Amino acid sequence: MNHLLISDPTLRDGSHAVQHQLTMDHILFYAEHAEHTGIPILEVGHGNGLGASSLQLGKSLVSDTELLVQCRARLTNTKLGIHVIPGFATINKDLNNALDIGVDVVRVASHCTEANITKRHIEYSRNREKEVFGVLMMSHMASPAVLVEEAKKMESYGAQAIIIMDSAGASLPVDVHEKITALVHHLDIPVGFHAHNNLGMAIANSITAVESGATILDGTSRGFGAGAGNAQLEVLVAVLHKMGYQTGIDLYRLLDFADQAESLFCTPPHISSVSVISGLTGVFSGFAKPVERIAKQYNIDPKDVFFELGKRKIIAGQEDLILDVAIWLSHHAK
Amino acid sequence: MNHLLISDPTLRDGSHAVQHQLTMDHILFYAEHAEHTGIPILEVGHGNGLGASSLQLGKSLVSDTELLVQCRARLTNTKLGIHVIPGFATINKDLNNALDIGVDVVRVASHCTEANITKRHIEYSRNREKEVFGVLMMSHMASPAVLVEEAKKMESYGAQAIIIMDSAGASLPVDVHEKITALVHHLDIPVGFHAHNNLGMAIANSITAVESGATILDGTSRGFGAGAGNAQLEVLVAVLHKMGYQTGIDLYRLLDFADQAESLFCTPPHISSVSVISGLTGVFSGFAKPVERIAKQYNIDPKDVFFELGKRKIIAGQEDLILDVAIWLSHHAK
Repeated sequence: MNHLLISDPTLRDGSHAVQHQLTMDHILFYAEHAEHTGIPILEVGHGNGLGASSLQLGKSLVSDTELLVQCRARLTNTKLGIHVIPGFATINKDLNNALDIGVDVVRVASHCTEANITKRHIEYSRNREKEVFGVLMMSHMASPAVLVEEAKKMESYGAQAIIIMDSAGASLPVDVHEKITALVHHLDIPVGFHAHNNLGMAIANSITAVESGATILDGTSRGFGAGAGNAQLEVLVAVLHKMGYQTGIDLYRLLDFADQAESLFCTPPHISSVSVISGLTGVFSGFAKPVERIAKQYNIDPKDVFFELGKRKIIAGQEDLILDVAIWLSHHAK
Repeated sequence: MNHLLISDPTLRDGSHAVQHQLTMDHILFYAEHAEHTGIPILEVGHGNGLGASSLQLGKSLVSDTELLVQCRARLTNTKLGIHVIPGFATINKDLNNALDIGVDVVRVASHCTEANITKRHIEYSRNREKEVFGVLMMSHMASPAVLVEEAKKMESYGAQAIIIMDSAGASLPVDVHEKITALVHHLDIPVGFHAHNNLGMAIANSITAVESGATILDGTSRGFGAGAGNAQLEVLVAVLHKMGYQTGIDLYRLLDFADQAESLFCTPPHISSVSVISGLTGVFSGFAKPVERIAKQYNIDPKDVFFELGKRKIIAGQEDLILDVAIWLSHHAK
């Protein structure tokens, strides 16, 4: 198959890069240009998805409802997508409201070994006749066999595609090849890949995913996203077109659009030393800011904190562990 | 072979990023830290190499002689390297002077199909008992067979290693694999790779080069270099160590060093839309600035200029062609 489905989470993953303070002006500029450029799916919302705006995770400047209503009004050919993590997004309030507003694509996500928490949200969205993808986050923490098992659960709940996320940017092409190949082999639904660039591999891993049979890829303008950022959409599309794949996206418009988006808010991320360590240790890059803050407070090297968190296999929601590790290191480090 | 030789051209390729205005303070900071971090080779000089400081290519703030004398005084275990393009660097004046000052590694470079211009410079440097590498630039413009032929010329002149440069960042891993494999198979000397990041492939291409048999890699702090930049050294070393290769570089020190270098002068490059087009069309990223300036002047899209320059296979030294193409496009474009 030569045609790929591109999903653009600039207004969702990029939200992490500005502590969820995207303005309505920037959001609407982006939505209008996404439509004009032929972006197939535009994913919007708080960095942690629907219903995640909170004191603990950071309040969004623009509420889910405002955001979805305004984007809905501007998108016709571009589908409106949301990222939904059960636990943050309730069915009765958040999901129901989003579906009423007219979201097209619901991507229900869990940690890579926790697919069972997605059952009700997937079923509910399918019953409402929405397009539903299952998303396995932090996929570097599970073997191909475990990913297949978890993906099959999502498939059985009704997911129409499975996306694996390399949330910590910890994967090398050889890992992506192995995992995508296994998923494509064992599933009857399309498979996709969402990259982060901590080890400089976002584009290479995305291309490897496609060569291994994936047909859905995520990318953001200038790579705008958490930590070291995502696969840079305009680079990804250029390389895919060069390789003979079709995306339906107008590359010239996309390049100009990315220049404008950069001048407004899509500040290009770079790979900081902490991001490299995040990728090396497999710890989610979203932890970089608290790790740096707490390491400074305890006068220890943030790299040591990351290595220790990696050993303890920290996952989202375990932010308290950062403080524990910092205290432990400040007592035990040489 | 598990041990790789890393050469760091931050103070040479990075010179392009600041129009050759690196200050002596920054240079000395960098040289001292390179030594402390265990960088095997530090390559210094004007972006276009020894003797290239000129009104046309840009004057260096610090002269070759000052730079080499001061760096020489600070390096013990780290070897001092220079980039030498015959035509810019004369033997009698520039090369002789550099060798007198005590350069350790002389990298004699030509366009990938012009190896014969390197004969005298390679022979002269070998006669002076220096370590000499042959460098083929813009390697995406030649087939594996042609690269082998040109590399063999350099080997016959006395080159002790061959480096191919992906000067326009136009190569994908499949291209790098093919070319490095051919060179390793046909040469009796080590082979190396120098990446640019226009298509987001600098790290992936470098890793592919190593997996194909290359044993020498170039990388710069934060990727500091022409256009979209080089392989980011601290990312490269992290990935190589993760894969089980040895570099002799202290990764923790390197990460801290890169943070400090960034705060002083190694501004992380990003992949601009023009850089993407440069990579797609195979036109040297060093042309980006004149192309943008001239396109603006003639009110045409710089992307169109790049595509046309790519079709006409522009190479270094043919800067006049940019103006010709701009005039031609301004008359012929719709």
